[in-house]
Amino acid sequence: MKITVIGCGRWGSLITWYLDKIGQDVTLYGRKDSEHMQRFMRERKNDLLELPLSIQLTNELDSVKQSDIIVISINSQGLQKLMEELNSLHLQNKIIVLCMKGIEISSGRRLTQIVNDNMDFSNEVAVWLGPGHVQEFYRGVPNCMVIDSKNEQVKKMLVESFSSDLIRFYYGQDLIGNEIGAAAKNVIGIAAGMLDGLGLSSLKGALMSRGTREIARLIKAMGGNELSAYGLCHLGDYEATIFSMHSHNRRYGEAFVKKEEFDKLAEGYYTVKAIVSLGKNYGVELPICMAVYEILYLGKDAWETLNGLFTRTIKSEFQ
Amino acid sequence: MKITVIGCGRWGSLITWYLDKIGQDVTLYGRKDSEHMQRFMRERKNDLLELPLSIQLTNELDSVKQSDIIVISINSQGLQKLMEELNSLHLQNKIIVLCMKGIEISSGRRLTQIVNDNMDFSNEVAVWLGPGHVQEFYRGVPNCMVIDSKNEQVKKMLVESFSSDLIRFYYGQDLIGNEIGAAAKNVIGIAAGMLDGLGLSSLKGALMSRGTREIARLIKAMGGNELSAYGLCHLGDYEATIFSMHSHNRRYGEAFVKKEEFDKLAEGYYTVKAIVSLGKNYGVELPICMAVYEILYLGKDAWETLNGLFTRTIKSEFQ
Repeated sequence: MKITVIGCGRWGSLITWYLDKIGQDVTLYGRKDSEHMQRFMRERKNDLLELPLSIQLTNELDSVKQSDIIVISINSQGLQKLMEELNSLHLQNKIIVLCMKGIEISSGRRLTQIVNDNMDFSNEVAVWLGPGHVQEFYRGVPNCMVIDSKNEQVKKMLVESFSSDLIRFYYGQDLIGNEIGAAAKNVIGIAAGMLDGLGLSSLKGALMSRGTREIARLIKAMGGNELSAYGLCHLGDYEATIFSMHSHNRRYGEAFVKKEEFDKLAEGYYTVKAIVSLGKNYGVELPICMAVYEILYLGKDAWETLNGLFTRTIKSEFQ
Repeated sequence: MKITVIGCGRWGSLITWYLDKIGQDVTLYGRKDSEHMQRFMRERKNDLLELPLSIQLTNELDSVKQSDIIVISINSQGLQKLMEELNSLHLQNKIIVLCMKGIEISSGRRLTQIVNDNMDFSNEVAVWLGPGHVQEFYRGVPNCMVIDSKNEQVKKMLVESFSSDLIRFYYGQDLIGNEIGAAAKNVIGIAAGMLDGLGLSSLKGALMSRGTREIARLIKAMGGNELSAYGLCHLGDYEATIFSMHSHNRRYGEAFVKKEEFDKLAEGYYTVKAIVSLGKNYGVELPICMAVYEILYLGKDAWETLNGLFTRTIKSEFQ
């Protein structure tokens, strides 16, 4: 099968490496002005991995026309713009696989909604989500991930084509829950980093329990299965987020409360704005997401807000 | 209120220290032949903490007669024997608070069932469960825990009397779920340690997601609320278990697969036997608990069993 991966960051390049490794015919697309892509063109590597010569590299978006599957891994807030470019290519009968986590701030749209809003019905969309560190996959440490799609055939084909000893895919059964859960875990990751930075790491236990709970409520209100918050897309990704030195979101939260510089993209910084807004629209209380939002955007004191969150009120666990 | 704490191990002594600190009148009981107790009698401390002079120390179990509340923190398999001793004192109108996690292997009884089977109806029983490290509480790092009891008045009184800035208690609402969840987290802790020892730490994400799921199924089958597996008693305690250098259960699992010596009590070693047996009785599949059981008791290979568990079968997440 011919596959183009769009996005040459940490995950885009890992996916490219992985799909080639399991025998797919893969092209990696990156923009001409992307520094990551320029380096791949020059050296075939980034700081984490090296791409074999069997992978084609291109700056021409047109090349997706020759592919059966287009995997996209870019920042979420840029997806609408990319879809407009793809739309102008009049693609037909493609499978778009989103390997990214977020919600569009301006509209509250899930990422598959953005794809559907820009493509005709001959094209299908799926998501590829779940835990794992780029560094560890590259070293050969296995993990489980999840693929979900409204189209059962597409889902089955992708799970069967993409599974290997390194990544074992589960069949997702709740696109809303998986997309919201995956996006929201970056927000919980920022909260975890803030707790670390404040010397309150042991509250990460309560964070896991209360964080999953509020995301479960949001998923349910949006029409998904609340259990998805406890699946691979969200809770299953906590190891790689809440407890990892590699997680950009966790590190961003820690750097923020310590007032240190941090130059990587933390998707959760954008997602929290979209999640808080979804909470309002659906009438769901999201105390942890709201606390992260207030600390990042409204200048509230992190210690007071987070410590207070867990220890202020005495109440029942599952009201 | 007069309180006797029975059990002078790591948690018993922390509870003693804590209850004294928040102004309760506390006696710590330990057996004459306990090395921990002998050291407290001599030096008023163990390796982790020091007990102020306001706390009374005793070797006389009779002293519980003067107490309103008896907090018990001993190893679970010894509870029946202790209850027989307490029974012989003909106690009346006491509140027994269990601060321990386990299930009796020989009978499959939850710990509150053991208490009820040995005390008359004038006595009440409650559980005190949830996350936290002895070391961190002693340093002043706050956490949330949960108190549960069938008796609402008792629960309310305990939550109000025991809450402070250091430990904020939630009201439990599912005694079955909280007891099973708390006991089972020690088994998941052993599995986590095994993954660490095998260099498969990144599978701890999948472990959290799949582990909570099977415990939720068991709780539901036993008549509890499946969401309790995602509460403070189980998932909320994962930080202190699955990701902690302090957890005896995690360290035991790691030492086991590395074939290293480990001399601390790992409750989960006993609990897994009871849980597997409950799973059979209630017809619930418990693949992770079964894997831990087979590795510890039947000599199965840890790598093959655990790696296979997460990566062998392709299936749906929430069937």
